[in-house]
Amino acid sequence: MKQIEVSRATMGRIPTYLKYLKSASHISENISATALAKQLGLGEVQVRKDLSSVSGAGRPKTGYNIKELIDTLEKFLYTDKNNNVVLVGAGKLGRALLDYRGFEDYGLKISAAFDIRCKDTDMSKLGKPIMPMESLDEFCRENNVRIGIITVPAEHAQEVCDRLISDGIRAIWCFAPCSLNVPDEVTVQYENMALSLAYLNKKIDFQQKDDIE
Amino acid sequence: MKQIEVSRATMGRIPTYLKYLKSASHISENISATALAKQLGLGEVQVRKDLSSVSGAGRPKTGYNIKELIDTLEKFLYTDKNNNVVLVGAGKLGRALLDYRGFEDYGLKISAAFDIRCKDTDMSKLGKPIMPMESLDEFCRENNVRIGIITVPAEHAQEVCDRLISDGIRAIWCFAPCSLNVPDEVTVQYENMALSLAYLNKKIDFQQKDDIE
Repeated sequence: MKQIEVSRATMGRIPTYLKYLKSASHISENISATALAKQLGLGEVQVRKDLSSVSGAGRPKTGYNIKELIDTLEKFLYTDKNNNVVLVGAGKLGRALLDYRGFEDYGLKISAAFDIRCKDTDMSKLGKPIMPMESLDEFCRENNVRIGIITVPAEHAQEVCDRLISDGIRAIWCFAPCSLNVPDEVTVQYENMALSLAYLNKKIDFQQKDDIE
Repeated sequence: MKQIEVSRATMGRIPTYLKYLKSASHISENISATALAKQLGLGEVQVRKDLSSVSGAGRPKTGYNIKELIDTLEKFLYTDKNNNVVLVGAGKLGRALLDYRGFEDYGLKISAAFDIRCKDTDMSKLGKPIMPMESLDEFCRENNVRIGIITVPAEHAQEVCDRLISDGIRAIWCFAPCSLNVPDEVTVQYENMALSLAYLNKKIDFQQKDDIE
């Protein structure tokens, strides 16, 4: 499998390609990038670029073998590696994420949540464990967890982050409105919900100004 | 108030500036960009750029009058206009967003949620109304709502989007994994949680590859 850096936008389209290819796999053996683009209402250049970044170019005239392409795209999406994710902070947002089914499209799941207010292991509506903070370190090490989601208040985020890193986590997805200090080898992705909404609100003003000018 | 386009990153730092300036306002009358940068551990160039994009340059030697700067930053953040937001789809994620307190930092609030499964008006844990879909059009028009949040499943997102637009909404914040068709004057911002997590997971692989090479 080719393993070069693929853009977020390309990755976002892979589930769409897979869905269509699976429905087409019993009708035809091969498909061209042109036909795929037409079926999905996407630009042909975009489809060629997406597929070649993950799978390489199609064969001249015949295009891609559909079964092989499905296999390659699935291998890319559902990394063979351990995809365990933990979440710290089982408040409303944390619990919503814990039971969010959309992660399955990418072969990911949040295995467990941890919360300082949790004294005994509790279960989410979909049966995921919500455990006391004392169990975090052991759980991360035993399950070789790579990603930690932080949904605690901003003032506790750094402390939780440090602990996750000492438990071997490689990447942090942080929903607390703060800035975390992490070593170079750890990746942090911030999700600031309030800022996203505020920025969208400002965009309306900017656009109204453009309309007037 | 200067109303030019301000970056998302700048906007994200404004609550931090405000918090510090409010704590400093009873100690001193003025503050320089240099001092502000030092106090907050930010780069001086960044602070100057942020402040000048919202408020204009400080005065030579004295810098900014703290009270005036607070006033300008607050006016920028808390638009005088109607900031009503509605949400459609009161599932787990919808309810978590409905009661999320972080929006208040930016003077925003979700006024009400609407859900097809709701027959009579219900209340969220924090007392926000969750109303039947039949009440949506009237609510949006009466309250001059500008922003609609879509947290319904992807297959219903376009239908909800069309209805919000016909109710006069100017911007859509869409959490459904889909692509919406909207007129040019409507702004759409997508939030694909599953893709965000999947992309973070891939980043670890890319980084591991970089480490090996």
